[in-house]
Amino acid sequence: MQDRLDAVRAQVQAELDRAIDALPGGDLRDAMRYAVQGGKRLRAFLVMESARLHGVADDAALPVAAAVEALHAYSLVHDDLPAMDDDDLRRGQPTVHVRWTEATAILAGDALQTLAFGLLADPRIGAAEGRVRLVAALAQASGAAGMVWGQALDIAAETAGTPLDLAAITELQGGKTGALIRFAATAGPLIAGDDPAALDRYAVALGLAFQIADDILDVTGDEAVTGKRVGKDAGAGKATFVSLLGLAPAQAEARRLVTVGTKALSQYGDRAGNLHDLARFVIERDT
Amino acid sequence: MQDRLDAVRAQVQAELDRAIDALPGGDLRDAMRYAVQGGKRLRAFLVMESARLHGVADDAALPVAAAVEALHAYSLVHDDLPAMDDDDLRRGQPTVHVRWTEATAILAGDALQTLAFGLLADPRIGAAEGRVRLVAALAQASGAAGMVWGQALDIAAETAGTPLDLAAITELQGGKTGALIRFAATAGPLIAGDDPAALDRYAVALGLAFQIADDILDVTGDEAVTGKRVGKDAGAGKATFVSLLGLAPAQAEARRLVTVGTKALSQYGDRAGNLHDLARFVIERDT
Repeated sequence: MQDRLDAVRAQVQAELDRAIDALPGGDLRDAMRYAVQGGKRLRAFLVMESARLHGVADDAALPVAAAVEALHAYSLVHDDLPAMDDDDLRRGQPTVHVRWTEATAILAGDALQTLAFGLLADPRIGAAEGRVRLVAALAQASGAAGMVWGQALDIAAETAGTPLDLAAITELQGGKTGALIRFAATAGPLIAGDDPAALDRYAVALGLAFQIADDILDVTGDEAVTGKRVGKDAGAGKATFVSLLGLAPAQAEARRLVTVGTKALSQYGDRAGNLHDLARFVIERDT
Repeated sequence: MQDRLDAVRAQVQAELDRAIDALPGGDLRDAMRYAVQGGKRLRAFLVMESARLHGVADDAALPVAAAVEALHAYSLVHDDLPAMDDDDLRRGQPTVHVRWTEATAILAGDALQTLAFGLLADPRIGAAEGRVRLVAALAQASGAAGMVWGQALDIAAETAGTPLDLAAITELQGGKTGALIRFAATAGPLIAGDDPAALDRYAVALGLAFQIADDILDVTGDEAVTGKRVGKDAGAGKATFVSLLGLAPAQAEARRLVTVGTKALSQYGDRAGNLHDLARFVIERDT
């Protein structure tokens, strides 16, 4: 998996750089370019693997992989704002509003969301029907019934000061991080017009495992390695999978979800090897 | 024109309400619903008239009209934020961050942009090719080469404290308000796969006339009628078409642009009557 992930990282970065270089110069473009640097690119990798499993060429899937990373970058820039999570560090660097201004961070996030949808209209992806399915699915995943909804629940819980229970935190995660992971994992069948159900089941389990692993890293992680503040959730008295389940049961639940996720891929046989590896990587990573 | 404009207002409001009612409940949805109330709906009207001129049925154009108003509403919610233009009044009501919180305003704006792109995927619009053309055009018009770029130029000019000259302010307006007006006016040919050049020329002139009229209203307008703060630009020492040209020459330029715009519609003959009326309305309005 590692070679393919490295290749996807380089390809998607080149694709994002090309799209951003085509924009008029200034702080706005600089901030956008800064915001799409680094990151694990797991969502892009999901797009590329999902595409390969459904006979979609790498060149056709690449604008979609770039779109999902642009969308993810926008959400991070806005989540880090003082009025939201108020984070000063992201991927080991000052956040956009710290490096520039709040206004530039708001606008750069806005423009990265626009860029994501613009990339889905790219003719290289293929038939217009597939591109329209992607637009509809990304709007569903990222809007007020998906990612933005999850973030709003998170902010509301923090404002209320009442820790969430397991059901509420699972629902919140399903929006905040789960929805975009599901979009990425089903991009291949969406482009090809195939049934996305198996990849969607995989993605639901993967997304939840990913969040549990994030919560574990917030407790056990090293700031120098993760590139973001650790102990933040625990310090804020915020409910997490670890605070609700305990550390060892959370680790066991993440492992169980990896099994559930990989089982969902049985129809793809050995061709889904990279997605099996990814699921294990997600819970074993230290960043 | 007035009957058609009233009908479009009611139709587009119903379309927006339907889309927003389908979302999960909470402050986020309430703020989105609030943000799409009122407004002149000139952009929606442009979409509907442009569609009619190119043989696109009202039912097919309606999701596009709702999309352009959702996109416009998102831009207003974000522009009004404390870190941006810091406005407390919009359409005669408290702005979203005043009524709720900054976090809710950021998220509601984000989700309204998403909603706009989601609406462009609506199958009622017709062939997927047309929908993809709309997505590409809206991304171009609203992103870091269009509306967001214009807003970034505006913020940069205010931060620098150096008033802009006529060329710079025309360029800024072309992004900040012009690009979305051009998208709206060309939606019909984009859906139908026809040449949008004539409607685009009309829209360039209309957009500039609209901005000049706005600057005139900032000097001559009545807050109780316009529903927003007046004298704000003049008070901030901000360059406007009025400050650069003088009041009477600005009024003459707006009238000249209306003539240019309506001449561009000659191929449509009498069928473009509503668009002729709209151009005159734009410079004669008091709100």
